[in-house]
Amino acid sequence: MTARVEEMREALQRMGEKAVKASRALAVLAPAAKAACLNRMADELESARESIKKANSLDMDGGLKSGLTSAMLDRLRLDDARIDGMALGLREVAAQTDPVGRVISSVVRPNGLRIDKVTVPLGVIAIIYESRPNVTADAAGICIKAGNAVILRGGSEAFHSNQAIAEVLNRAAILSGLPDGAVQLLPWTDRAAVNLMLKMDRYIDLVIPRGGEGLIRAVMAESTIPVIKHYKGVCHLFVDRECDLDMAVKIVENAKCQRPSACNALETLLIDRRIAEWFIPPFLESMRRNHVELRGGYEFRKLVPEAKPVSEDDLHNEYLDYILSVRIVDDVDQAIDHINTYGSKHSDGIISSIPENVEKFFANVDSSTVYHNASTRFTDGGEFGMGAEIGISTDKLHARGPMGADELTSTKFIVRGEGQIRV
Amino acid sequence: MTARVEEMREALQRMGEKAVKASRALAVLAPAAKAACLNRMADELESARESIKKANSLDMDGGLKSGLTSAMLDRLRLDDARIDGMALGLREVAAQTDPVGRVISSVVRPNGLRIDKVTVPLGVIAIIYESRPNVTADAAGICIKAGNAVILRGGSEAFHSNQAIAEVLNRAAILSGLPDGAVQLLPWTDRAAVNLMLKMDRYIDLVIPRGGEGLIRAVMAESTIPVIKHYKGVCHLFVDRECDLDMAVKIVENAKCQRPSACNALETLLIDRRIAEWFIPPFLESMRRNHVELRGGYEFRKLVPEAKPVSEDDLHNEYLDYILSVRIVDDVDQAIDHINTYGSKHSDGIISSIPENVEKFFANVDSSTVYHNASTRFTDGGEFGMGAEIGISTDKLHARGPMGADELTSTKFIVRGEGQIRV
Repeated sequence: MTARVEEMREALQRMGEKAVKASRALAVLAPAAKAACLNRMADELESARESIKKANSLDMDGGLKSGLTSAMLDRLRLDDARIDGMALGLREVAAQTDPVGRVISSVVRPNGLRIDKVTVPLGVIAIIYESRPNVTADAAGICIKAGNAVILRGGSEAFHSNQAIAEVLNRAAILSGLPDGAVQLLPWTDRAAVNLMLKMDRYIDLVIPRGGEGLIRAVMAESTIPVIKHYKGVCHLFVDRECDLDMAVKIVENAKCQRPSACNALETLLIDRRIAEWFIPPFLESMRRNHVELRGGYEFRKLVPEAKPVSEDDLHNEYLDYILSVRIVDDVDQAIDHINTYGSKHSDGIISSIPENVEKFFANVDSSTVYHNASTRFTDGGEFGMGAEIGISTDKLHARGPMGADELTSTKFIVRGEGQIRV
Repeated sequence: MTARVEEMREALQRMGEKAVKASRALAVLAPAAKAACLNRMADELESARESIKKANSLDMDGGLKSGLTSAMLDRLRLDDARIDGMALGLREVAAQTDPVGRVISSVVRPNGLRIDKVTVPLGVIAIIYESRPNVTADAAGICIKAGNAVILRGGSEAFHSNQAIAEVLNRAAILSGLPDGAVQLLPWTDRAAVNLMLKMDRYIDLVIPRGGEGLIRAVMAESTIPVIKHYKGVCHLFVDRECDLDMAVKIVENAKCQRPSACNALETLLIDRRIAEWFIPPFLESMRRNHVELRGGYEFRKLVPEAKPVSEDDLHNEYLDYILSVRIVDDVDQAIDHINTYGSKHSDGIISSIPENVEKFFANVDSSTVYHNASTRFTDGGEFGMGAEIGISTDKLHARGPMGADELTSTKFIVRGEGQIRV
C-alpha cells in the first residue's frame, strides 16, 4: 500500500510538472492559435471516433456487469451523435471571445506609474466529476480557452471512455505545438490518488469538484488547493400577496417540472397567506397534471388534504424529482428568512406586483441569483449569454453563479515606470 | 481538554450566528449609514483611549516579562498618536467610495430577461494576524466598509489590547443600530480555538491569514473555509543587457534598502552577463553604502570577492533584511525561468531599454505584479490608489496583489423578468 501510494505520488508530481509546463506555453498562446488548437481537438475527436466508441464499449460492458440502471447506462453511452456533440462544443468554445489579456482597469498614478490590471490564465485546473464522459471534452475545452492546463478525474464507471477522450485532446494539443500535458486524466480511480492530488498546491491552482454533496465535502476536507464548489441547489419561489396568478402558476410549473433533475429546479414553494386561497386551486391543477408530490406543513395540508407532511430535513433537501415542499408564510420578510435559513444560496425568486417587496427580496436574499417574475431554471451559462459553462458556483469567492471561461482567469498588475522609486 | 474544546465549539457557534446576523444587517446598510458607523467607531476609539492604553499596559508588562525585544515591544505599544492613527484610518475608510451595489455588467437577453451582476458583501470574514494591535482597527474597518462582519484572531502578546479595541468597535456598531456581532475577537489565543474556527464554513465565508509561512501553511491544512493567502514576497529585479545604468542602480537600491522588512522588498537581483562589468561597480558602491550583505554564485563572486556563497535555500528565501542574492544570467529568458522557479509570484521587475524583452517579461513572469523600470516597493494598496489595504494576496483566485475593500465583495446576479419560463 505505502509503495503504491509513493508510486502514485511520484507519478502525480510528474503530471503536475507537465501540467505547469503546458500551462506556461498556453498562457502566452495568441488567441488565434488557441482557437486553432481547440478546433484541432474537435477534428481529432471526430477522427478518433472508432477508438473512443471501442473504449466506451469496455465501460458499457463493465456497467452492465456491475448492474447500472438503464438510465445510468444511457448517460454513459457514447455514440456518433454524442461524439459529434463534443466536437461541436469545442468548436463553439473556439469561436468565443478570448478571455485572456482583457484590460480590467488602467490608471496613471500622480508619480507617473501606469498600472494596468489584465486578465491572465489561472494556470493548472483540476476537475473532479462523476458525470457523463462528454464532460471530459467540455471541461477541458473551457479550461484551454482560458489558457489553463487541466487535470481531470472522472467517474470510475467511465474510466476507459474518459481516458480515450483525454488522450485524443492532449495529442491534438501537442500537434498544435504545445508541450505534452495540456490535458491529462488521472490514471487511477481510487480515492487515495485524489487525496494525494488535493495536496499538490505547488502545481495546481484551482480544484472544481462537480458532483454530490459527499464528494464536495470530501474534497473540501482534504484540499490545500483553493476549491470552487458546485453545490446543491435548494431553490425557492415566493408567491407574493399581489401578483399575476396565471404567471405565478406557469413559472412555478416551469421551475419544478421542466427538468426536475437540474440544480436550478424548484424545491420549495413559499406562498403568502393572503393569496393562498386564489393561488392554490390553479396551482394544484398544474401540479396534479405533472404528477408532483406535494409536502407541506399543517396549514397547507388543511387546504390541500392530498399533501404529505414536510419534515425539517425536506426543507434542506434537493429532491431533484417531482416532489415539492410548500410553506404558507406571513409575508415577504418571512419568505426571505426561510430562504436564508434553508436555502443553498443558489437561485431564488419572487413572483410579485409590489416593487418594494421585489427590491427587499433582491437586497436581502443571500443567493447567487435572485429572480423577479421568472423561472429559476434560467441560472445557466448559456441562458446568461456566457457561452459554454464549467458549472454553477455556489461559493462567494472568485466566481458566484454560472461560470464560463472568463471565470477561469486570474489577473496580473502590469506597472510601467520611468525610473520611479518609493520615497 | 475535551470539555474545554466542546465549550469553545459552542461559544464559537454562538459567535458565528451573531456574525451572520450582523452581516445580514450590514449587507443592506445604505452607504451613508455605513460611513456614519465607521466614523462612530473612530469617535469611540478616541473616547476610549484611556481604557485602551490600560489594556495595552497589561500586554506591555507581559511582553517585558516574556522577554520581547525592544523592537517588538515598540510595535506592541499603543500611545495617543497610534490611537489617533487608528481613528484617522477609520475616517479615511469611511470617506472612500462604497464598494457594494456596483453594477459590474448588465445585459438584456433575447427573451427579455434583464440580468445585472452587482457587487454584494462576502458575509463574514475571519482574519488571523500576528502583527501590531492597530491591525485590529484597520482590518475591521475595511471589512465593515465592504459590508462584512469580521471575526478577528490576533497575536497572543497583544491580546488585551486587541480585545479592548474590538469591544469598542463592536459597541460603536451597536450604537449605530447594528446587531451585536459586527466586530468580534476570538477570546482564546490557543491553536485549538483557531482550528475549530477554521471548520466553521457554515458561518464564515473567507479566512485571511496574515503572518509567517508557518501560520499560513497551518491555516491551509486545517481550513474548510476558502482562504486567501498573504504569503511571502521573494521579489526579483532583472537588469537587462541594455538599460539606463544610473536608473538601474537607483531602483535596485530603493527596492532593497528603503524598507527591507516589507514583503515587496527585493530579495534576488539577476544581472545580464553582457552588462555586468558596467553595472557592478556603481551597484557595489550603493550596496556598500547601505551595508547590504551580498550572496552570489561562482561567477558573481569572481567579480565581487566580498560576496558570500549563495545556497539553493537562499534563492527561495525572503530575507526581510539587508541581504541580497545575486545571480548572473545569460539573458531575459534565463531571468524569467529563474523567477518562475524560485519566486513567490509576488512582485518582479525588469530594468531594460529593449521593448521586446519588457513585453516578454510581462507575458511570461507569472507574478501578481510585474514592473518595468520601477521599484518593486510600489506593490501596495495605497500606492496603487485603492485606499486602505487588507493585505497583498499571493493567491490567484478572487484577488491577486494588493487587496482593498473592493476585493472583500462578492457578486450577485439580479434577474428581472415578465413571466419568462425556460423552454
